[in-house]
Amino acid sequence: MIEFSDKSQQLQNHLLAFMDEHIYPNERAYSEYMHSVENRWAPVPLIDDLKEKAKAAGLWNLFVPPTLSQFVDHEGLSNFDYAPLAEIMGRVLWAPEVFNCNAPDTGNMEVFMKYGNEQQQAQWLTPLLNGEIRSSYLMTEPQVASSDATNVELSITQEGESWVLNGKKWFITNAMYERTAIFIVMGKSDPENESRHKQQTQVLVPKNTPGVEIIRPLTTLGYDDAPIGHAEVHFKDVRVPLENVLLGEGRGFEIAQGRLGPGRIHHCMRLIGIGQRSLELACERSTSRSTFGRSLSQHQSVREDISKCYSELEMARLLVLKTCSRMDEVGAKGAMDLIAASKTTVPILIQNLIDRCMQIHGAGGLTEDYCMAEGFNYARWCRQADGPDQVHHMALGKIIINRFTES
Amino acid sequence: MIEFSDKSQQLQNHLLAFMDEHIYPNERAYSEYMHSVENRWAPVPLIDDLKEKAKAAGLWNLFVPPTLSQFVDHEGLSNFDYAPLAEIMGRVLWAPEVFNCNAPDTGNMEVFMKYGNEQQQAQWLTPLLNGEIRSSYLMTEPQVASSDATNVELSITQEGESWVLNGKKWFITNAMYERTAIFIVMGKSDPENESRHKQQTQVLVPKNTPGVEIIRPLTTLGYDDAPIGHAEVHFKDVRVPLENVLLGEGRGFEIAQGRLGPGRIHHCMRLIGIGQRSLELACERSTSRSTFGRSLSQHQSVREDISKCYSELEMARLLVLKTCSRMDEVGAKGAMDLIAASKTTVPILIQNLIDRCMQIHGAGGLTEDYCMAEGFNYARWCRQADGPDQVHHMALGKIIINRFTES
Amino acid sequence: MIEFSDKSQQLQNHLLAFMDEHIYPNERAYSEYMHSVENRWAPVPLIDDLKEKAKAAGLWNLFVPPTLSQFVDHEGLSNFDYAPLAEIMGRVLWAPEVFNCNAPDTGNMEVFMKYGNEQQQAQWLTPLLNGEIRSSYLMTEPQVASSDATNVELSITQEGESWVLNGKKWFITNAMYERTAIFIVMGKSDPENESRHKQQTQVLVPKNTPGVEIIRPLTTLGYDDAPIGHAEVHFKDVRVPLENVLLGEGRGFEIAQGRLGPGRIHHCMRLIGIGQRSLELACERSTSRSTFGRSLSQHQSVREDISKCYSELEMARLLVLKTCSRMDEVGAKGAMDLIAASKTTVPILIQNLIDRCMQIHGAGGLTEDYCMAEGFNYARWCRQADGPDQVHHMALGKIIINRFTES
Amino acid sequence: MIEFSDKSQQLQNHLLAFMDEHIYPNERAYSEYMHSVENRWAPVPLIDDLKEKAKAAGLWNLFVPPTLSQFVDHEGLSNFDYAPLAEIMGRVLWAPEVFNCNAPDTGNMEVFMKYGNEQQQAQWLTPLLNGEIRSSYLMTEPQVASSDATNVELSITQEGESWVLNGKKWFITNAMYERTAIFIVMGKSDPENESRHKQQTQVLVPKNTPGVEIIRPLTTLGYDDAPIGHAEVHFKDVRVPLENVLLGEGRGFEIAQGRLGPGRIHHCMRLIGIGQRSLELACERSTSRSTFGRSLSQHQSVREDISKCYSELEMARLLVLKTCSRMDEVGAKGAMDLIAASKTTVPILIQNLIDRCMQIHGAGGLTEDYCMAEGFNYARWCRQADGPDQVHHMALGKIIINRFTES
Repeated sequence: MIEFSDKSQQLQNHLLAFMDEHIYPNERAYSEYMHSVENRWAPVPLIDDLKEKAKAAGLWNLFVPPTLSQFVDHEGLSNFDYAPLAEIMGRVLWAPEVFNCNAPDTGNMEVFMKYGNEQQQAQWLTPLLNGEIRSSYLMTEPQVASSDATNVELSITQEGESWVLNGKKWFITNAMYERTAIFIVMGKSDPENESRHKQQTQVLVPKNTPGVEIIRPLTTLGYDDAPIGHAEVHFKDVRVPLENVLLGEGRGFEIAQGRLGPGRIHHCMRLIGIGQRSLELACERSTSRSTFGRSLSQHQSVREDISKCYSELEMARLLVLKTCSRMDEVGAKGAMDLIAASKTTVPILIQNLIDRCMQIHGAGGLTEDYCMAEGFNYARWCRQADGPDQVHHMALGKIIINRFTES
Repeated sequence: MIEFSDKSQQLQNHLLAFMDEHIYPNERAYSEYMHSVENRWAPVPLIDDLKEKAKAAGLWNLFVPPTLSQFVDHEGLSNFDYAPLAEIMGRVLWAPEVFNCNAPDTGNMEVFMKYGNEQQQAQWLTPLLNGEIRSSYLMTEPQVASSDATNVELSITQEGESWVLNGKKWFITNAMYERTAIFIVMGKSDPENESRHKQQTQVLVPKNTPGVEIIRPLTTLGYDDAPIGHAEVHFKDVRVPLENVLLGEGRGFEIAQGRLGPGRIHHCMRLIGIGQRSLELACERSTSRSTFGRSLSQHQSVREDISKCYSELEMARLLVLKTCSRMDEVGAKGAMDLIAASKTTVPILIQNLIDRCMQIHGAGGLTEDYCMAEGFNYARWCRQADGPDQVHHMALGKIIINRFTES
Repeated sequence: MIEFSDKSQQLQNHLLAFMDEHIYPNERAYSEYMHSVENRWAPVPLIDDLKEKAKAAGLWNLFVPPTLSQFVDHEGLSNFDYAPLAEIMGRVLWAPEVFNCNAPDTGNMEVFMKYGNEQQQAQWLTPLLNGEIRSSYLMTEPQVASSDATNVELSITQEGESWVLNGKKWFITNAMYERTAIFIVMGKSDPENESRHKQQTQVLVPKNTPGVEIIRPLTTLGYDDAPIGHAEVHFKDVRVPLENVLLGEGRGFEIAQGRLGPGRIHHCMRLIGIGQRSLELACERSTSRSTFGRSLSQHQSVREDISKCYSELEMARLLVLKTCSRMDEVGAKGAMDLIAASKTTVPILIQNLIDRCMQIHGAGGLTEDYCMAEGFNYARWCRQADGPDQVHHMALGKIIINRFTES
Repeated sequence: MIEFSDKSQQLQNHLLAFMDEHIYPNERAYSEYMHSVENRWAPVPLIDDLKEKAKAAGLWNLFVPPTLSQFVDHEGLSNFDYAPLAEIMGRVLWAPEVFNCNAPDTGNMEVFMKYGNEQQQAQWLTPLLNGEIRSSYLMTEPQVASSDATNVELSITQEGESWVLNGKKWFITNAMYERTAIFIVMGKSDPENESRHKQQTQVLVPKNTPGVEIIRPLTTLGYDDAPIGHAEVHFKDVRVPLENVLLGEGRGFEIAQGRLGPGRIHHCMRLIGIGQRSLELACERSTSRSTFGRSLSQHQSVREDISKCYSELEMARLLVLKTCSRMDEVGAKGAMDLIAASKTTVPILIQNLIDRCMQIHGAGGLTEDYCMAEGFNYARWCRQADGPDQVHHMALGKIIINRFTES
């Protein structure tokens, strides 16, 4: 039923080999480096080395779809063909950056490809595609429910030849990262516009622009996700030239809509990867530890846990693949029901799945000796990313009710 | 991603039309007939009428796979192609018999096709395929955990030219049904055989053989599932000729193994059908009833329920389709991991899903005014059919642990 | 921590002895009688016999609280002291009637005690307290969300010396029962009254009044709950004298409010009883059945199920006892937070608990060979009784939010 | 139903006032200090200040029960009377130490009181009761399932006048803390003893003894719980005098058994405190934030979440109080069923409860801006503390099965 293209299958094989050769053997080194390094927000030399290897291996920018393949040196991969690759990368939380396939840079690169002009693409897209710089997407604000994009309050006003930005953002991934050079900022430029969807504008703000203040890193469940991090960022009379607008004044909402579909699904794919790895770890653990005279693997309750994990992963993966397939056929907008289904289903499923796998490991399962605790945090955090699940349930529920009641 | 053959798609369209024209409009009549009829175990005239229509429409014996198509007048349908058809039939609990696609007759017909000799096929398979008689499969026993088929205790001994059967069976679907003519009985013929899997034999016992006693109908959650029913059946010195053995003495376990895969998956397909219908009913209800100043459909909790139902149905359906696809490729034995995953996942999922849909309906949701309560019972019952879920979790957990720990 | 009065403890001992001597030994006889009897709605001789024995044993009308003890020949029991008695009675679904402690008669008797005049009490309360007649309370209507009592639509109009009733009710417990003589009917007498809570009136309607039509019994999950049953009842120009009003015109809502608290908690107590019994059955089963070489009781998953059942029962029981204690101190109105907590927590908890206990029993767990399936139905049904859980969650959520946000 | 002694009620009032005056106002300061301090394992000046205030207020060493009150200057509090105090302290994760009521020091002080000789009490108990030093209890080992205390492998051998210790421990709370002076170490001194429960000995090892190596802090879900922390500790030829034995050689298991009951319940009490506070925060949030035109508090799904949180907290609290009450009556051993019920029920319940409360807060709910994420970690961690829940389910399941099947 599930048949990936030859290209995808070859890439899967290459990627699996690369993981075996370069990623898994470096997990301990990465972890130790991050524990000992003084500046947790600086680029990690190990990652930089591995990026060169990934480029050389042709495992670079695989997230780019066929419709945007003019920007890269491969023909592009459909969402469906990319899904198993993202899952494999997701097995190690820091691995996606090695392949230039990490959020939010993938989404930001798509924004530049689809909405940037040539000058903007030359200045920012090219170094992003090369992995030389990183980027942030600034949408969420601490004081409003930003899951409704029209609530955004950061003000963007025109003064002479400049846009002037004032306001606050938070949960800005990459903003702590020293390699990050460019911010895509969503703000409100025309609050009186009678169309609630034309009040917003997106502008490009170099991170080092005066008035941009990186206030603090935020943690989720105790993790700072360094070196990438999630930051609170304030804007105080930040000025950028008018040409820094993306697509045009008043078109911020349009860009936001166009950006979100694939990103949500990429998170789901990677979550399945870390979930699958947690299951495999739990299987190993169950055969290597004994209690009360039998190996864990012989306890019926452990077998039931393992059985459920397997079935849930199968279902989650199939749901995501169907969503990808639909997106490939009719675009993200036409697949919004399935995107919402994946978004509301996969993170919580993976959270609970990893919870069980951690429990099978005893107290050690909660530590950094395994990838599970951080994977658990990733799943938990995704239930808020791009809006809390509740908002997506609301939208999906409405769609389904309409579908079966309209005549 | 999911592409059914042209044949399957055409049949889906015909079947949908048939449901609209002949099944849904008769639901009330069927229900009223069953309430008023004195003998609940007699054939239902309405069903007989509809069977003729289904035959005429070419919607007959669709469960037969290509490998067994010599027995029917169509080319056979793969499990994958049959799945959407079984789902549609499952939307009305009594509908599968209209298409000669009901359990346990489908499984029994497969047994006759695969393990019966020509004489047995002529005598029993032909009228079964014609829908003239019904059959029962007698495996489960009240006094032992029959989920382990080797536990079966009903004794089959050879005396002269006869097999003599003594013992008790229960949960024998169809045994109450007056149209049922033939029993396939699993028993123990060689309890001392050193191979635990060669102790069993299956023999054919006409229902009207002296010594066969239909003790009582059994209910599940209050339902007797008339006219099909689940019965307790006792055997007291029941004698049948030696030629009534299926496949051969000592090969009962082998037949049992060969029978079970597709049956479990057919249950899952039909459960998805009744689950899908429950969701659609809940959508309708949510727009037609108001509480506290808003329609139910506007309550966030209702939307979340609907949203979850949709996502869960998608996942369940995809899991079953993947299982079918795998069975079509490598056979039931090679797909036992996915069959176990479906068996342990789908019934409980549908049970909980229907529970939510009933709740949206208020007290009426629990009555016979809707199909939901009986569908709920069907789902609950399937968590025990072919062995309790726990047994299948145990087997699947073991498979998965081995998969990820064997080197 | 939990200390019942001496009186309650003595009654518990007497009641336990009575159950051992008279109830459990008759369970099979009761079940067989109900299966074989032609008229399922007639009084059951066995029940009548046992009622006399219960009266003689001083186990009669124990539900009556101290404040209403003038109506009975004991001093009344607080809710707290009554709780363990109701739990014990609840262990057998048909037992409460033996002690004249069954719903809805207990609630109706309270209505007569608190709101009836002397003539009404003489005519209806006395035979109810004697167990000679039964009664119904007619609130729920099929066409509106009756969980909001102001939605009630059955019209009560005054014509000359009569009230005239027109409308439909359903889920009317006891209405099928031939012993039932009197209906307490809630209707709308003043739909234009500007106070939404003064539009309703309750009147007494003898069941045999012309125009009262018992349309049909309703089932829940396949159970008709005979001989008590839940019926749909229509009123067509039903006339009763003006003196049949309860309390006074326009005071129906007030009575409805005053009736509901204890009734909900009595359901919870009885549910705990059937839940406790299911747990005990599961323990017995787990030691008497073996699979795969070990008794069920040795499987870790079975122990986990049993452990969870025990803890959940403890918690449910404690919550109900605290609710009772609060009701005894400050009345039902002051305890509405805890009543709502019990109402929304206990039925679903017991439903899931019995589900697990049934599963431990294999297929037989779903049949009438055990009390579990019918107990499951009782729990499921209680999630709709007196309004769906959602309505009570809404009210409780609002109370709690206000409690922690008001300054 | 729940009546605390006058003394407990007075202390509750004093403690609530102390929290209002001294703890809540310092939460931000504490958090900022811990973020900026270079050495996270040093004593925190703020805590030291508050300890003096708590002592002066008579809110010191309240965990001590009446049976051990000779060691303190109050009459001791029963478990039941202490429970609401521990709950209040638990509302701020770092607060218990302010009152000298933090784990594991409370449990260790009890060990010294019950099993220490006068010299040991003078040297270690007195400064512990004064809050001058801290202590660790070293049971869990990384390489074995330590939930079975007989599995402990750290070797304790006698050489001349010394015990010599070799082995590894982990999850040693307080071991990172610079104020910690004394380790109580469980090890195996007589591995050949035919009684598996007499092979163990507990000895006192000053933290600064040569050969004691604090290997590293461990994190759970990303939290290091500084300054207390959980450490991995290795012992290499660590020598202490023979008099450092606790109670006597071979009596380590006996001490371990005697220590655990109250500790598990204290965790539950504090978890209820942080759960209650999370609920209150969620209520506040729900009234201060709006989405889609209504405040969160008006969304039915939010009300259902709040309602469930309230009911669950009530049930958890009642279960713990009943457990305390039983322990007060018959001791921890006699209450082991209820202790196991609390241990397996409360942490997972609080984990899920806080999860919901965090979700109501949007992305910010996961950060350190609130106490919820760290409380979530505390709950998750407690599911492993003193053995994974599964072990306690096993024990409890066995008890309950025996209770209802033994004749």
